Amino acid sequence: MHTPHPRNPATPAPDAGGPAPAAPVVDMGEFESYASARRLTAAEVEGDAVALSWDDGRRARFHRLWLRDNCACASCRHPQTRERVVKLADIAEPGRPEVAVTGQGALQCRWADGHVSLFDPGWLLQRAPGTGAAAAEAPRTWTAAQMQDQLPAVPHAEAMGSDDGLRRWLDALVRDGAALLVDGPREPEAVIRVAERVGWPRETNFGRYFDVVSKPNPNNAAYTAIRLEPHIDLPNWQRPPDFQLLYCLENESEGGDSLLTDGFAAAQALQSEDPEAFETLCTLPVDFRFQDEVSDIRFRAPTIGRDADGNLAEIRFNNWIRDAQPMQPEVAEPFYRGYRRFWELLRDPRFMISFRLEPGTLMAFDNLRVLHGREEFNPNTGRRHLQGCYLDRDLVHSRLRVLERGAG
Amino acid sequence: MHTPHPRNPATPAPDAGGPAPAAPVVDMGEFESYASARRLTAAEVEGDAVALSWDDGRRARFHRLWLRDNCACASCRHPQTRERVVKLADIAEPGRPEVAVTGQGALQCRWADGHVSLFDPGWLLQRAPGTGAAAAEAPRTWTAAQMQDQLPAVPHAEAMGSDDGLRRWLDALVRDGAALLVDGPREPEAVIRVAERVGWPRETNFGRYFDVVSKPNPNNAAYTAIRLEPHIDLPNWQRPPDFQLLYCLENESEGGDSLLTDGFAAAQALQSEDPEAFETLCTLPVDFRFQDEVSDIRFRAPTIGRDADGNLAEIRFNNWIRDAQPMQPEVAEPFYRGYRRFWELLRDPRFMISFRLEPGTLMAFDNLRVLHGREEFNPNTGRRHLQGCYLDRDLVHSRLRVLERGAG
Repeated sequence: MHTPHPRNPATPAPDAGGPAPAAPVVDMGEFESYASARRLTAAEVEGDAVALSWDDGRRARFHRLWLRDNCACASCRHPQTRERVVKLADIAEPGRPEVAVTGQGALQCRWADGHVSLFDPGWLLQRAPGTGAAAAEAPRTWTAAQMQDQLPAVPHAEAMGSDDGLRRWLDALVRDGAALLVDGPREPEAVIRVAERVGWPRETNFGRYFDVVSKPNPNNAAYTAIRLEPHIDLPNWQRPPDFQLLYCLENESEGGDSLLTDGFAAAQALQSEDPEAFETLCTLPVDFRFQDEVSDIRFRAPTIGRDADGNLAEIRFNNWIRDAQPMQPEVAEPFYRGYRRFWELLRDPRFMISFRLEPGTLMAFDNLRVLHGREEFNPNTGRRHLQGCYLDRDLVHSRLRVLERGAG
Repeated sequence: MHTPHPRNPATPAPDAGGPAPAAPVVDMGEFESYASARRLTAAEVEGDAVALSWDDGRRARFHRLWLRDNCACASCRHPQTRERVVKLADIAEPGRPEVAVTGQGALQCRWADGHVSLFDPGWLLQRAPGTGAAAAEAPRTWTAAQMQDQLPAVPHAEAMGSDDGLRRWLDALVRDGAALLVDGPREPEAVIRVAERVGWPRETNFGRYFDVVSKPNPNNAAYTAIRLEPHIDLPNWQRPPDFQLLYCLENESEGGDSLLTDGFAAAQALQSEDPEAFETLCTLPVDFRFQDEVSDIRFRAPTIGRDADGNLAEIRFNNWIRDAQPMQPEVAEPFYRGYRRFWELLRDPRFMISFRLEPGTLMAFDNLRVLHGREEFNPNTGRRHLQGCYLDRDLVHSRLRVLERGAG
């Protein structure tokens, strides 16, 4: 019998500090604390909705099926997994509940079949339609002038040793799409220790982690000494890695400075100066492909990806592994025009910052937003050795949420 | 110094058989063979395009920038990485080439700066606009009647021991979204051997692989003995696992039959019988969330996902970890109506097949298309033990492409 890997074994206990939040009135099966100071003052059935009023004057309406669906009693929500076990598909018609406010200010619903549901007033307030669960904040894009001398940096020891340090670093990484850890050990696989402090590395065709060095028989450009134009890694995957960690172990060669560009800032600039080119890059699918002895990994996606709401979601730019895709001459004309213009912006000093990585420094960035590159280096003048790995966005956000549980 | 993991170490040499394809006229840096029997008979500059004719009468036009961009000479395409190193952004204006057909029927372009590019005629034909790189085939959806007694199955030994066996199994898995390996060993971690025969497992918060058994302190429904309604795994991840492998080691308990439904077939049925409900499920974002001591992983996406062309792309249905999301009563009404109807279809015997997994059988399925579940079982009547892991779609397709290289 095998059990799942233990997760984040190096995590210290949550920082002590601040009073524990008051216990909720009704246990809704959540790990996270929810506002428990508010009490309900009134509950009323209005058609298929239940209208509620809290003691601070706020009001909200919940559909009766939503309430039945989210009952948190031990037979509707599994007491150990905290998952929903009630199945609406098996309840022919829950009907309209009889509602009441309990002495502690909670909501009680009695259903047609006699089942009773209790809801914590703070939990309900958090989930009031239109108030809770705001959409993700738009990223704060940056130009070179805004970022040059202030790439966020946290000492390696603080991020590895304290929840607060880790939280500051991950906050910066999520906000700016790039952040450093500085003054770390010059130890092989230190990059893996950092990834495991957050979650675990995402394995790819380059392994669980990879060494960026000049190699005699390279299978990709990073393993040569040539200049690397700003790019994202693995656009040929349906879901390229979200975050990349690059840990500098040695950097004695001439050249090889690191380059970073906020691709969302460059895309916004393209949109305002040449909307037609922007639209072309947002809509024309581009083939990417990596092939070696054992792999042939392909994906097709536009250079600039937008989400369902039209917000910038991802940049797929990598000139090496863009495939030779069939393209009508009439399509090639606007594509190459827009592609060239975007490329010029990506390497424009207005947007691109450059700096030298010191041994013991880890550079982390959002691979789908912040493009990375490096200047050419001369491998005959000294050793240059980085180790890298990838990290899922889900894990970064999960780690932040769990850290915030302990933050009171 | 560390090198990437060796990949697919158990792969036998490609099956011998059939004559090797004729060598291409020009080495375009591709692993894959390309039609080399065709020769060009004419090449002509027409404005910004180059018009080509082949000896079988076919004709096509390529934009001059496309040709410059895809030059495969040793200075434009890295001879070892096979990646593009020529940068159009650094060529102010390649101009219109002088073109000629070589004695071997290849295309020669001489550029304004004196650079010469050669193109293989078969490689060009493969990439002729409008002919090559067809869109992915639409999946062949299935109902229970179509699938019941013919879930594709390949003997474990054939898939593990021969390229042809592996290819037949992966072909079926991609086409039908589900396929079995049968008569395999009853060995712990055999599931990992299968994953490593294709690529490598995708690690999640449940580990590199997981044991599906009834546990005393479960953190999710699979680790209990309850009936599992048809569902996908990990809809709370931005990118849930693509394929799931479930390997049966023991199955002595009463109950516990496996359930599979082609979610695309059920979605098509919903679309034709209740277009409004279908549209609601395609557009209304649903919050999913898994929380335990160390994780809080959330994502928001519609129940039925479509791609940019409007084709079915993924199903996100999992009643346990659907979150209690804020929802206006006016939105809840159509959502719960559509959700219930879709659920009824997913468990409808028209669409759902059920069967008993034998020890030594591996069931693989497309987690984003084919929903899985199981009947309740009685853990007091005998042991039931499955091991599972996940596999990226990119790796499945890559493996198939590499297998096809050897297939002549």
